Amino acid sequence: MSTPLRLGIAGLGTVGVGVVRILRRQAELLSARTGRDLQLVAVSARDKDRDRGVPLSGYAWESDPVALARRDDIDVFVELMGGHDGPAKEATEAALATGKDVVTANKALLAHHGQALAEMAEAAGRTIRFEAAVAGGIPIIKSLSEGLAGNEITRVMGVMNGTCNYILTQMEATEQPYEVLFEECAKLGYLEADPELDVGGIDAGHKLALLSAIAFGTRVDFGSVKLEGIQRITLEDIQQARDMGFRIKLLGVAQRTPRGLEQRMQPCLVPAQSPLGQLEGGTNMVVIEGDAVEQIVLRGPGAGEGPTASAVMGDICDLARGLRIATFGQPAAGLDPVPPASAALPAPYYLRMRLVDKPGALAKIATALGSAGISINRMRQYGHAEPTAPVLIVTHKTTREALDAALAAMHETDVMAGHPVALRIENV
Amino acid sequence: MSTPLRLGIAGLGTVGVGVVRILRRQAELLSARTGRDLQLVAVSARDKDRDRGVPLSGYAWESDPVALARRDDIDVFVELMGGHDGPAKEATEAALATGKDVVTANKALLAHHGQALAEMAEAAGRTIRFEAAVAGGIPIIKSLSEGLAGNEITRVMGVMNGTCNYILTQMEATEQPYEVLFEECAKLGYLEADPELDVGGIDAGHKLALLSAIAFGTRVDFGSVKLEGIQRITLEDIQQARDMGFRIKLLGVAQRTPRGLEQRMQPCLVPAQSPLGQLEGGTNMVVIEGDAVEQIVLRGPGAGEGPTASAVMGDICDLARGLRIATFGQPAAGLDPVPPASAALPAPYYLRMRLVDKPGALAKIATALGSAGISINRMRQYGHAEPTAPVLIVTHKTTREALDAALAAMHETDVMAGHPVALRIENV
Repeated sequence: MSTPLRLGIAGLGTVGVGVVRILRRQAELLSARTGRDLQLVAVSARDKDRDRGVPLSGYAWESDPVALARRDDIDVFVELMGGHDGPAKEATEAALATGKDVVTANKALLAHHGQALAEMAEAAGRTIRFEAAVAGGIPIIKSLSEGLAGNEITRVMGVMNGTCNYILTQMEATEQPYEVLFEECAKLGYLEADPELDVGGIDAGHKLALLSAIAFGTRVDFGSVKLEGIQRITLEDIQQARDMGFRIKLLGVAQRTPRGLEQRMQPCLVPAQSPLGQLEGGTNMVVIEGDAVEQIVLRGPGAGEGPTASAVMGDICDLARGLRIATFGQPAAGLDPVPPASAALPAPYYLRMRLVDKPGALAKIATALGSAGISINRMRQYGHAEPTAPVLIVTHKTTREALDAALAAMHETDVMAGHPVALRIENV
Repeated sequence: MSTPLRLGIAGLGTVGVGVVRILRRQAELLSARTGRDLQLVAVSARDKDRDRGVPLSGYAWESDPVALARRDDIDVFVELMGGHDGPAKEATEAALATGKDVVTANKALLAHHGQALAEMAEAAGRTIRFEAAVAGGIPIIKSLSEGLAGNEITRVMGVMNGTCNYILTQMEATEQPYEVLFEECAKLGYLEADPELDVGGIDAGHKLALLSAIAFGTRVDFGSVKLEGIQRITLEDIQQARDMGFRIKLLGVAQRTPRGLEQRMQPCLVPAQSPLGQLEGGTNMVVIEGDAVEQIVLRGPGAGEGPTASAVMGDICDLARGLRIATFGQPAAGLDPVPPASAALPAPYYLRMRLVDKPGALAKIATALGSAGISINRMRQYGHAEPTAPVLIVTHKTTREALDAALAAMHETDVMAGHPVALRIENV
């Protein structure tokens, strides 16, 4: 048995407590697997007196996470505080500066500062592991950076925010509108303190930016992720999609194209019979496509104490076993600063709008599409009680630029009531 | 850049050629990721003159794989010949004895000799990597042994023979009997030279035995895997299962129970709406359940040049990066020789049989079940033209022992025509 691996954990919320529980419960199993004792030395959190349901008196307490990160009796700093600036960033930097490896679940921190932190880690001969930052318990970082290392990755896709998927699938199952399910999630504690992080696609966008960097050997570029939330999805959209054999998912897609790196996190229609289309509730799913492996699908719980702690523990066990690769799978200096793609690859689109109910209204809309070079696959106007008429259009494959031109032209007519909803139909 | 990692490949069939292609095509990418050149030094195969569609003149040729394994100018011996004895075993032993790491796709070799080979590797300070041996392109070995290392694994399940899943799903889709689809697979080259390896569940059983060892820290014990093939599944079974909301899959299940290690590879009914139930065609799926992670599902191509070569390359890249763990995730000497469970955990069963068409026949069958303590969930006798009557029974949860007692009692009656089919209904 080698020397123990000494750990310091900053942040004792759900995930932190989950990690402490595993370290206590599975000490023997973890030693057998890693060949070392995993020894929790010190912890840090805001409130020392709170009962967290797990005994903490055997560990040194630091009220300041930066002080914890600097302790010379730990080998690994486990950052489970969250937040992309402030203490999480300072403590991570302090840990690297004083020669510790870092394990973190903090997607925001790495989405914003990943390149700088990876460079800092390498300069110190250390690494940052972040399996828990993406898709909870699914070992996606490891699968992508190690298991599929022999592939040129061609596309990464995923449903990576369980709350959004819960809302969308519950809208269909219960026939309740978005607002009702949003409130339900708020009550159940499924939403981040700032709900925009969830329903606005930001949290999932952070995760996509991290996967992109590993998949394509590029610098993390969260700023270029095209973000669109689920707030405007109506029950009608869900039902129309279903009737056409699709489901609506908050879907992340990243691919390297000749025109640059395409990264989008937006509600899309996907075939109901595809693995992504079949995904229910708060579960996450990531799809990886590579030149050799074709397509791999990974599915699992995207959040929660156990699954997220499992991912943190996977990283800790790797470090205990001496398995270490560069933060984003290759040296940070070699990561490519690929410019963002100016536009997404062409796709069919789903459009829903309301028109003022007067003769020729539909013709004006069809003309706007035709003038932009967009042909219509199907078009329906529904019976209605309201003074405006609901209209549904599915286009043939088109570019987003052409679509935006058509939408602008529609806006110039006198027949639009409100803004249309336009959703990409993704070939998954 | 460190020194190159020097490779010798024995076996230039589909997978071997696939690996050579990736090494040639992605040399730059592989160097960027691993920090080393991956240098193919020598190859070995039966027929030197065969055109394999890839240039081989730049590599040393060895007609004897053992001689290749012993070369002192290679670091890693890549065994892609297959077969659980003979040259594959000799060459693997020669490679370990002369200090090389081994990468192999050979499930039969490890299922039969895994413990001895793992011990030999450790004595030499080397390791054997075998990602390609289980579930093709799915990084399941890595996910289980590294990504989920913080979990006590509670159950491993999977559909791990693509040919069987293709036959079963095509029976449903095309309404053709087993025999027709078996012939189709033979023509398409989907079957092993000895088809019993596929349709008898042996190949999938090898894979399950390897996953068990990693999941539960036990010695590989293929001899205790309860094997049952798909040869007796009829179109009627498929259709009856579908009508009840199930699908029939050749399903592997491994779990550590208080009564010992349970390992079975057998056709089972699984809920049609579960990820396993939805799996179509030649795709593989592995489900892992752990105390922390809950449930993870991995899905991908189980065979083929690209996907299998992708798995081999993942192992090679790990070795190039210096990522190495013990063959089965922990030292071979510490692997537990857990005895096999005397019987599987209780489950409901599906029974199909034909009865001689005379008064009281059904009553005799019902009595046989009742006497064995098995209660009936549903029972149907079908209209029929033949002189024997088709009968379908779904039991409540029961043990396999009780069921076997009931089947023996049925056999003693004078109403059975032929042997009944009994399939476990698995809670997945």
